[in-house]
Order: sequence, then structure tokens, then C-alpha cells
Amino acid sequence: MLGTLLCNPNFKFFTLSHKTYICSKLIIMAGNSYGTLFRITTFGESHGEALGGIIDGCPSGITLDLEAIQLEMSRRKPGQSAIVTQRKEPDDVQFLSGIFEGKTTGTPIGFIIPNTNQKSDDYSHIKDNYRPSHADYVYEKKYGVRDYRGGGRSSARETASRVVGGAIAKQMLPDIKINAYVSSVGPIFLEKPYQDLDFSKTENNPVRCPDEESAVIMEEYIREIRKQGDTVGGTVTCVIQNVPIGLGEPVFDKLHAELGKAMLSINAVKGFEYGSGFCGAKMKGSEHNDLYNSDGTTKTNLSGGIQGGISNGMDIYFRVAFKPVATIMQKQESLDNQGNITEMTGKGRHDPCVVPRAVPIVEAMAAIVLADFYLINKIY
Amino acid sequence: MLGTLLCNPNFKFFTLSHKTYICSKLIIMAGNSYGTLFRITTFGESHGEALGGIIDGCPSGITLDLEAIQLEMSRRKPGQSAIVTQRKEPDDVQFLSGIFEGKTTGTPIGFIIPNTNQKSDDYSHIKDNYRPSHADYVYEKKYGVRDYRGGGRSSARETASRVVGGAIAKQMLPDIKINAYVSSVGPIFLEKPYQDLDFSKTENNPVRCPDEESAVIMEEYIREIRKQGDTVGGTVTCVIQNVPIGLGEPVFDKLHAELGKAMLSINAVKGFEYGSGFCGAKMKGSEHNDLYNSDGTTKTNLSGGIQGGISNGMDIYFRVAFKPVATIMQKQESLDNQGNITEMTGKGRHDPCVVPRAVPIVEAMAAIVLADFYLINKIY
Amino acid sequence: MLGTLLCNPNFKFFTLSHKTYICSKLIIMAGNSYGTLFRITTFGESHGEALGGIIDGCPSGITLDLEAIQLEMSRRKPGQSAIVTQRKEPDDVQFLSGIFEGKTTGTPIGFIIPNTNQKSDDYSHIKDNYRPSHADYVYEKKYGVRDYRGGGRSSARETASRVVGGAIAKQMLPDIKINAYVSSVGPIFLEKPYQDLDFSKTENNPVRCPDEESAVIMEEYIREIRKQGDTVGGTVTCVIQNVPIGLGEPVFDKLHAELGKAMLSINAVKGFEYGSGFCGAKMKGSEHNDLYNSDGTTKTNLSGGIQGGISNGMDIYFRVAFKPVATIMQKQESLDNQGNITEMTGKGRHDPCVVPRAVPIVEAMAAIVLADFYLINKIY
Amino acid sequence: MLGTLLCNPNFKFFTLSHKTYICSKLIIMAGNSYGTLFRITTFGESHGEALGGIIDGCPSGITLDLEAIQLEMSRRKPGQSAIVTQRKEPDDVQFLSGIFEGKTTGTPIGFIIPNTNQKSDDYSHIKDNYRPSHADYVYEKKYGVRDYRGGGRSSARETASRVVGGAIAKQMLPDIKINAYVSSVGPIFLEKPYQDLDFSKTENNPVRCPDEESAVIMEEYIREIRKQGDTVGGTVTCVIQNVPIGLGEPVFDKLHAELGKAMLSINAVKGFEYGSGFCGAKMKGSEHNDLYNSDGTTKTNLSGGIQGGISNGMDIYFRVAFKPVATIMQKQESLDNQGNITEMTGKGRHDPCVVPRAVPIVEAMAAIVLADFYLINKIY
Repeated sequence: MLGTLLCNPNFKFFTLSHKTYICSKLIIMAGNSYGTLFRITTFGESHGEALGGIIDGCPSGITLDLEAIQLEMSRRKPGQSAIVTQRKEPDDVQFLSGIFEGKTTGTPIGFIIPNTNQKSDDYSHIKDNYRPSHADYVYEKKYGVRDYRGGGRSSARETASRVVGGAIAKQMLPDIKINAYVSSVGPIFLEKPYQDLDFSKTENNPVRCPDEESAVIMEEYIREIRKQGDTVGGTVTCVIQNVPIGLGEPVFDKLHAELGKAMLSINAVKGFEYGSGFCGAKMKGSEHNDLYNSDGTTKTNLSGGIQGGISNGMDIYFRVAFKPVATIMQKQESLDNQGNITEMTGKGRHDPCVVPRAVPIVEAMAAIVLADFYLINKIY
Repeated sequence: MLGTLLCNPNFKFFTLSHKTYICSKLIIMAGNSYGTLFRITTFGESHGEALGGIIDGCPSGITLDLEAIQLEMSRRKPGQSAIVTQRKEPDDVQFLSGIFEGKTTGTPIGFIIPNTNQKSDDYSHIKDNYRPSHADYVYEKKYGVRDYRGGGRSSARETASRVVGGAIAKQMLPDIKINAYVSSVGPIFLEKPYQDLDFSKTENNPVRCPDEESAVIMEEYIREIRKQGDTVGGTVTCVIQNVPIGLGEPVFDKLHAELGKAMLSINAVKGFEYGSGFCGAKMKGSEHNDLYNSDGTTKTNLSGGIQGGISNGMDIYFRVAFKPVATIMQKQESLDNQGNITEMTGKGRHDPCVVPRAVPIVEAMAAIVLADFYLINKIY
Repeated sequence: MLGTLLCNPNFKFFTLSHKTYICSKLIIMAGNSYGTLFRITTFGESHGEALGGIIDGCPSGITLDLEAIQLEMSRRKPGQSAIVTQRKEPDDVQFLSGIFEGKTTGTPIGFIIPNTNQKSDDYSHIKDNYRPSHADYVYEKKYGVRDYRGGGRSSARETASRVVGGAIAKQMLPDIKINAYVSSVGPIFLEKPYQDLDFSKTENNPVRCPDEESAVIMEEYIREIRKQGDTVGGTVTCVIQNVPIGLGEPVFDKLHAELGKAMLSINAVKGFEYGSGFCGAKMKGSEHNDLYNSDGTTKTNLSGGIQGGISNGMDIYFRVAFKPVATIMQKQESLDNQGNITEMTGKGRHDPCVVPRAVPIVEAMAAIVLADFYLINKIY
Repeated sequence: MLGTLLCNPNFKFFTLSHKTYICSKLIIMAGNSYGTLFRITTFGESHGEALGGIIDGCPSGITLDLEAIQLEMSRRKPGQSAIVTQRKEPDDVQFLSGIFEGKTTGTPIGFIIPNTNQKSDDYSHIKDNYRPSHADYVYEKKYGVRDYRGGGRSSARETASRVVGGAIAKQMLPDIKINAYVSSVGPIFLEKPYQDLDFSKTENNPVRCPDEESAVIMEEYIREIRKQGDTVGGTVTCVIQNVPIGLGEPVFDKLHAELGKAMLSINAVKGFEYGSGFCGAKMKGSEHNDLYNSDGTTKTNLSGGIQGGISNGMDIYFRVAFKPVATIMQKQESLDNQGNITEMTGKGRHDPCVVPRAVPIVEAMAAIVLADFYLINKIY
């Protein structure tokens, strides 16, 4: 099987080295905030009382469309279609501060998303077990203690808070258009360039692929995978239009570097490329350079709308790779905390393919990154 | 030609949208620091008096091997072989603080790298011109003013300061082994997994490919490209071994997210993938999951040494895509600041292929990321 | 009256210059977080649905004493005695994440404090009015919009969240003893040095002055002031004992600089001094220097336990000045938003003197500062 | 003597508790940067090769007056008059980046100040000795290693870099007027309010007191103190005029909290008060409240130009207390690193009174704080 991984010939996927250190006692989790001026900080475990967060830096005087926010939540929530997890979580967001008489006041926006549909006993079987390719083992080794119910903090449920932040960021940036969609599911690729797609069709099918034909094939494939008790990976492509020139802070905080980090911080992401991406590495300069039109636009856009880390006004586009969900409904070996190899079968209600629900998360993180750079520059 | 970009079928590389905003007057460059506790801040333009930086957070009491630092500088410097730029820059680093009687004192390490070989008149032809796929245009639009000599701040010359920071980070983390190498040049790929390579051979050839056979073919190809007055992209692979369990700060500052940002912040980088990467997106969960051995190691390592954003003690490996250098020695259209399309031919001494010199930069940024997470956790 | 301000002869307290700028549209509130590794972010307005916050960086594995946290809340809450505001707010804190089976998990601790006793109509009279020496005017000018109910975000009610953070920081630092107390109320000063006080008596009286005699006089004075419909300022002294050597990060983040900022960020604070403080400015070096004992302790401690910005193991002590509460029950001029001078009398239930309730807030902020430096150094 | 410290009756200046912890091995110095958007990072020891720093966030397009910067350096430099240290250091600043054709480019401004007049052998006598009330002891305990020449990083020489940053901040904020002056030397106080002073006279005398009569008495006193081989403390008052409404970021980053931290981070500072300060703590609300004029200005200004942490357009004024310089030319006990009490007499060329040279440093730090808040708000 591994022989098919032709595009990555320089790796073999088995172990060589391994080193165990004993952790010190004071271990913290430092990375729960994102952004400098527009900043989201999240909290919450999958099976605690509530998730939530604080959005810092949302300008005052913005009339928030709360329904639009809830709509984004619904795009991410479980149970929305037959090809995603059948958990029923309403994912209702409750705002506790920062909004007065319908408008933002410039003060921090606190919000919670109550956890209403926890079935914690679904997870008792993993209390003493480390599921393969999950974060169970590293959390226990790092923190010495672990909320084992549904992955705890490592669960993708945390992304619900990001969607709230992204929905508000989108309303702060009304001119900028952010459209993500599923561009591959397993081996099935959408073969059309984004310019030939109609983004308004993305929500027409449960896969969130704007090309109907491809969507049908992808959906069928996911159903088949689910029947096998298996899961499959995929890619999400995101296109950002109407971006002002000048966003991005070189040298370290280049616009694409920050977009890359934001995407790679989403659960299950394994890769990020923008513009010509990995293909660009095969090309010559004479092929790759984007020649100018006299108005400063470019004839081609292999740069992906970013040059030297700064937006140049052209479309920004990038692609994000998601691995298959680790929880499968087949028998698999796992490790218990006594060092025994045991056998387990996934329980609970899990996604056979994560990318349809990842689409709003990708958009949300993109919006958060843009909002932050927008404030740093305050371009208008 | 563009038809060959099969791995990215969902993009067409030409323009659609473009929007010009007028920038406000107070425009700053915010992103000149990297890291939280181990933190490097750099300054300097390619043709100013000096580059330099400050390394904050290097622990006290470390006996610094200054020759080892200078050696890393030599791996990055121009003019080191026939297939890189023929500029002669010694890139001597001078330390101004933070070291006393050979040891670090815990105080910030200030350093400068004098610019000795500037030929600023090489660049007078671009004073009023925006070279295609360079940062000229966006810097001028964003900042309203631009040091046009050799790219100014946007020049890859800035990475010399990063190599200083990385060399110190490596000495702070003596057990961790970081080895990068060239894994492709244009269409030529090194077809061996990293486990079959001998990293000690990487420095034996000017391409920095540890496989001699591949290195010869790559070198020949680069010479051919240079003869054409053209440039070519490539990829660098990096392998990190002996990493303690527990580095990485979910949810936003996952270890791979920070590594991704660090790599994407290097000039000319277009993509990043770790572990199974984009290939992983094609796979099924039953294929992708890394089963455990009873000692907590895993039988395969598609996770790439990171689970849930935290190192699990297995090898970390990732791949970085570099686009071809934009300055080519062929006639090309450019845009002048009056809105005229003009014709120009690259001057100066540029690299036909950036990846051989990028190898030490990739290692440096990896070391800086690890040093920072190491301090946040202080695992030992 | 102003003639009595002898200790500040170089100020006259009336207006000279004033400049009005028009604010830009994108105004954010950036400062809702405190700390680098141990970090609290708060949200909430006095009359919104809830206050709350997120504590980031609390190490894993700490068994939290929730009753001790609630006890700190009770020290701060309104209505606890006859000399503070008679508002009845239970100030019950609800934890939503970061704690599992009684222990911290290292993940962010999210919490809310519901607002149960809001009487928003108490504030309708200030909707269009700017109360003197309140934040009404600047909030409206800065943000363009204002939650006028009870001061909104500028209300000292926000400090409830800080007390939660401080209570957790205290449990993280069990060896360090932090004791604050009221050292003056208006013109009445506690004339004893802290070394002659028994801190266990601080909670024995509603003033929170550990000297019974002084406490009686202070309490009587506050009752008298309240009868007049007036308010009065005071000072809080804080003593921190058992501090390890080495906390503090010069040059900018000196331990006392951060303590100073933390105290000055509390509502109504006008000054901060530590060690010899303003008195030290009158002294000679030969008087002020703290001579060593052979074990590294010092014979005197005018340094206040901090030298060069770093704790030296001696007691840290400092004094914080609070101005009188601005809301008084007497007729006063105010300004309405049409530029008319109007007359108003304070309504609602306000404190005649803020310092008794400020004691736990001072302790909380001190604990947060120490916890952060402790983690940065991880001294043990 | 200690009996005279009447204004601080609640402290006794001798030791009670002391606790020695053993430091861990990885000790870093984290606090070498100040500011969020306008950000200065400094490096350098008093007797290393050079001091220097990086100014991040200075907007592009500002024509820098380099002579004005050097003039500020001259106000701070040693040897400028008979009442300050007689060390001769030219303190010439060399800019290495960020300026092109006389204008800022928006990129980081790197600079160095070479150390030309180091007499390191002046300090060999303190190699194994901890001078009383210096940072020698805590640096050695914290970092395990110490650059003992002239205080190393803990020397006030580091403030030269701050003056560079402040001088640039001042040029970025041309409308805002920042004037500091000496308001007391030891027991001698300038008895006039700032409104009765002519700031243009501050530089007319070596004390930097704008009141000629007081300046003469202060100067005489300092000469007398120096003859005794002693030193003396003092206070600096700072007045900031023409501040736009709206600077400051509550709740934690209140304008006065940040000003307080900035001042307390200057060497030898023991206290900070703004507006009514410690006097305000004695007052009643009916006395303290600043009533409005119909244009939004206030009739009095006990608030000190800041309400709720936000500038209200009135004059900002504050007072900073400096302790006496610890190095005296009298015999004194010190501690050697073997735990022996020894006797030593100060050598080298030190200031008998630090406040005259502190005036430009206070102004510089104030300017840096304002520049940062200005950019965060971008008010114009």
C-alpha cells in the first residue's frame, strides 16, 4: 500500500528513532489564542459543560448579524447530513458581552456554546487506552492528566469557537469574499480550476463541492467508505477575493505564513500550499513569473495573490490537506496505559470524512487572519 | 506548459479579480520577531550598512562554539560553489553582547553582519521598475517608499540573521538532530526515503543532496538552467530526530503549525507538508493510522512525529516547496512606476536555484521553533 | 482645599490644554489580557448577562480548592458589610473547562460569573450624561458607542474575573504568602510597620485593616463620609513573603514594573511605590543601601525585596493609592451629550470607600504577576 | 534616621523572611522588548563592544532628524556637566537599517552605540563581590554567570538605547509635547505647580529644573553630597500636552498603567503617581471630581488627563521617584561570593544624583508608550 505514495518518495512511514524524556511537573498549554489585534482565545473540552471563547479587538459600532453567525455554526455542526457524524449538537452560541443594542462596543466579545449532547460513557473504553493516531498518548505524557472523554481539548469540537470568531471577522470585512470548498475526497479530485466554479453552489450538496458531478461521485465514495467502517482524507481549497493591497507583515509574519499556520492549526491538517504551491517547485522562473498589466494587475497569478508576504490585490488561493479521521469502526490495535497492546473498535458517532465540515472552519481561520492584518494596517 | 500542473487541477494561473485601495499613511512592519521565549528579531536591508538581530531568551551558561555558528553562515553564504550566485559576501557575524568569557549570560545576544559587497548601482535600473514576481510593487504600494537596492528588506539576504539564531538554537538543543537536504530540483526528485540516506554526505556536493547519484543529475540540471539564463524551483526535506515527547502548544500553536509558519516565512516558499502530507489526504484511516508498539513508539510514522500538535518522540519530517528565483537573465516585461510596460533583463549575481542555499535556512528556522517550544515546556 | 495637597506641590489641578481629534472608525480595545505564560483574558460588562474569562497557562495536575476560590470572591463581592455598597451580588463563579476530576488538565480554564442583580434602570439617567471623573466621556469619544449601564466595561465589576485568576494563581504558588490590607482611609493612616501586624486579623473587621484600633477609627470615618453622601480614597499595602530569588525579567519586565502595571490597571488607582518608594527619593545612598548578612539576606530592606528588577528573596512590599469613588450622593454638575452642563445626583448602590473591597483585588493581581514570572523562570 | 520616613509608616526596613531556592539550569531573560506595534528591543552590556537595539513599527515615510536624535543622546550622556559622572562617552548612535534617502521605510530600524570608554579594570574589584543594593547578587543567583564589568546588563547604560527609541517616537508624534524636569533632589522640592513653569528653561542648568532659583539650591546640594562621597535620590515630573482623546487600552493596558510600567522599568525608580496620585488617596469624592466645561474639557484636572485608562485630552502629568545611586565613595560592607562580609569603597566614575540625566530617559519612555497606543488606535 505504501508504495502508492509516489508524490512523497523521500519518506518511509515507519519508525526509526524514539526518545523518552520525563516531563517536568509544570506543564502548561500556551497556545490558546490567535492573532495580535483581532485576537480569539478559546476554551473548552468536547465533553465539558461548554465551549467558548473571547474575541478581542473587534472594532466598535459594527451591527452584528447574529443569524449569519448561527448559520456558520450550522455549516460546521454534526448531524447536518447523511455523510457526516450523526451526533446531534445544536451548537447554539450565546453572547455574553461586547454587544449592546445590537452593535459591537469595542469591548471583548465573550461567548459560550453549551455542550448538550455529551455521551461520556461512549468514551469509558478509552480511559486507559491510547487510540492510534489520536492525541491521547501525547496529552497523557505531556500533561500527566487527560480528559479522556471524546478527546477532551484535542477534539475538533474546539473549532466551533473558531467558527464564531471567523463569522464575526467576516462581518468586519464585508468587501472581502472568502469561499472554501472541497476539492478532493480520497483519490477523487475536482479537476476544474476555481475560476470555472460557481461558489454559490457549494452549499447545494452535503460534500460542499461546487461542481455537482464531482460532488455526486465524492458523496458516493464517502458512503462506501462509511459502510466499510473506514474513513478517508481530502483537501479543501480556499479562494479569497477583493483583498486590498498591503496585508501581511514581513519578514516573519508574511500573509501566507500566517494563513499556513492558521490552517495547520486545524485538526487533521497535514499540508498547506498557496499559489503554484508544490507544483511551483518543479517550474522554471521564465514560466513562473507573473507579468504585469499596466494597471498593476498580473496576467497570470502563480503568486497566489501574495508577493514577498504581502497581498498584491489579486485572488489569494490555497489548498489544505486533511488526513483521514483516526477513529474507524474496524478492529484495531491500541496501547493501554500499562504498556499492553489491546484490540479496540471505534465507538461513538464519528465522521467518515472530515472535509465537508472543515469547509466553514477553513473560511473562519482565513477570516480571522485577514481581520488581524487588516487592523494592523488599517487600510481603507 | 500550464497544462502540466496536474497535481493542482483546481487553479488556473491567471487573473480574475483585483482591487486597489489607497493605503493610510501610518504603515508599519510588524513581523520582525519570531518566537515567544526564544525569540529572534532581525533588521537590515540587502544593501544597507549591516544586517543583524537580537536573540532573546537564550539561556545563560551555554558555552557557545562560535566557529560552528560561522560554519552555518558559510553554508548559506553566496559564492560558495559554481551553482549558486557568484556574489562574494564573507557574511562574518560579529557578536556585540550577551556573551562573556565564552559563555552566554542569559542577556540578549546582539549581533551584526556587515554588508561588504554591495554593488548598489547594479540596481539603479530597477529604481523605477517593478520586477515581475518580486516584492517591489507591493512594498511600494504598502509603504509608499522603498529601498530598491537589491530588494531591500524583502531580499533573502535577511535570512543570514536567521541562520545565526538557528545556529545558537542548535547549540542550546544538543541532543536534537536536525538534518535538511535537497529532495528535488525542478522535475528531478530524489526517489529514496530519508531512512535510506546518510545525512553526513549532504555537504559533500554543492546541491546538498545526500544521494550522490541524484546530486550529480541535479547539479547538471542547474548548470543547464543557468546557461539558459533561467532559474528553477525545488524542495527541501527536513528530518528532526531525538525530539522529546511533549513539544507543541495546542490548540493554535501546534508544533507543525509553527514549523509550517516558520518555513513559509522563508523567501520563495510556496508549500509545506509534514508526515504523510498531501498524500495523506488520499488515504483511508485504516491505512493511515500508526499502530503502537508496547513502548509507545509506533510501527509506522505517517503522523510525522506529531499527534494533536504535540511531538510523540518519533522522527519529525516535513517537506518545503520553493518556487524558482524570480530574477532571470532573459528579457522580460516589467512595469514602471508610471504604469508603462517596459522590457528588462536581470542584472546582478543571482542564484539559478535557491534550494542548495536554503538547506541551512530550513534547519535554522526548525531549530528556532524547537528552542522556543523547549523553553515553554522546559522538558529534560 | 487644593492648598492642602502639599506633597505634590508641582501640580495645579486645573485645566490648561485640551485638544480634540476625531477618532477613526476602527477602534478596538486591545488590553483585555494580562500575562505571558500564565495569562488571564477577561470579558464582560457590569450589566451584561455575565462576566468571565479564560485562564491560560495554569499547569496541569493541580488539585483546585474551589471553595477557596469562592471565598476570595466573597471578599470582593458587594453587600458584605455595612460600609460597602449594598448591592447584593452572589458572584458565583462557574467553571466550564480545564478541570477534570478535580484537577487542572493544563488546558485553558474558562469561567463565567452570571450577573444576577442588575438594575439597569438605575442607570437610565446617565444614558445621555457624562458623569464627572468617570470613564463615560472617553468611552463615548473613543468607541463611538457605549454600554452606559453601570459603567459597562469600565466598571470595577470586571475585577471579579481577576479575583478568580488570582485565586488560582495562589493555589499554583502555595509557598508564597501574599497579604494585602488597608493602610489608610482618607487622612487616617495605620502608623505601624507591616512587621508589627498580624495578617490573620485582616478579615476580622469590615475595613480589612489588621490593626483593630485603626480599623475602628477608619470604619467610623467611612460611616461619617457615607452619611455626607460623599466618598473617600485610601491606600492598600501588600506584602509578599517566601518569594524565591530570581523572579523578574529585566530590562523592561522588571518584577516591580510589572507589579506596578498590574496595580495601576485596577480601577481608581493613582499611584504605586515599592520598598522605600517616594521616601527613598529623599534619602542618601549611605542611608538607603541594604547591607548584606553573610547568608545573602540583607540587614535592612529598603530595596523592597527586588534589586535590578529581580526578587532577592527578602519580603516584597508595596503601597497602592486609590482615589475616592467618583459617584457621590450629592448634587453635582455633569455634561450631557449635547454639550449642556446639567445637574445630577448619584443613584444606585455605590461604595463610600473602595479600599476594603480592593484588598483581595490587589492580592489577586500580585498573584497573577508572580505566577507568570514563576513559569517563565520555573524556579524550584 | 529611619524614623524620618514618616510618609511610609507601614514599613520597617529590615529583614524578616528569606527563602533560597536553587535555580534551574535554563534561565533566560525575557523582558528586552517594550511595546506591541511600536516596539523597541534592546541589547548590550555597559562594557561590551556596543549597545544597540531594534525599533519595530516606526511608520514609513517619516523624514528623520538625526541631529535631534543625537541631541537627546547628549542630554543623557555622562560627562555633560560638573554634577554628573565624569566618564566621557560620546554615545554616538549609528543607524544600520530602516532609513533610506533620509526617510523611514517602515522596516525595522537597527542601531548600535559603540562602547568607547570602557575601563573594565575599574571593576575587577567587584568580580567576586556583591555590592549592596546593586543587582550583582540577584544576577549571579538567577543566571549563574554574570558580566561583572560595570553592572553588565543591569547598568543604566542600557537606557541609551531607550533614548534612541524615544527620540524617534517623538518625531512620529510631532504634535504631542513631552516635557520632563527635576522636581526634587533629596529633601529639596520645587514648590511650584507645573503650570507656572517655563519648560524652555529646563536645559539652562545642569540640574534640569526649569525654576532657576530651585535649580541653584539643588545644584549646590548635589555638589555637597558629592563631596561627602555620597549620593542622593530625587523625583522627575513629566507633563504631556496635546494628547488626542482616546489613547489607552483598558482594562489591563490602561494608559497610566503602561506609563507606570515604563517608568518603573527605568533603573533606580521606586514609585510612580499620576494626576492627584498619593494625595488623591486622602481626598473626598466631592473634592476630587473634575467637573466638565461644556466643550468637554474639565475645570480641574486631578484625573491627570486620563479617565478609565483612556486619555481625555487634558494634560497628562506624573511624578517618578528615583532612589539614590547605590555606588558611594565611602567605605561600606559588601558580600563576597564565598559568603564573607568584606569592606569596599566605590571606584569608577558615578553620578552623585541620577535625576538630571534621568529627565531625557523619562521623556523617551513616555514617547515610546504614546507611540504604541497611537498606532493601536491610529487616531488622527
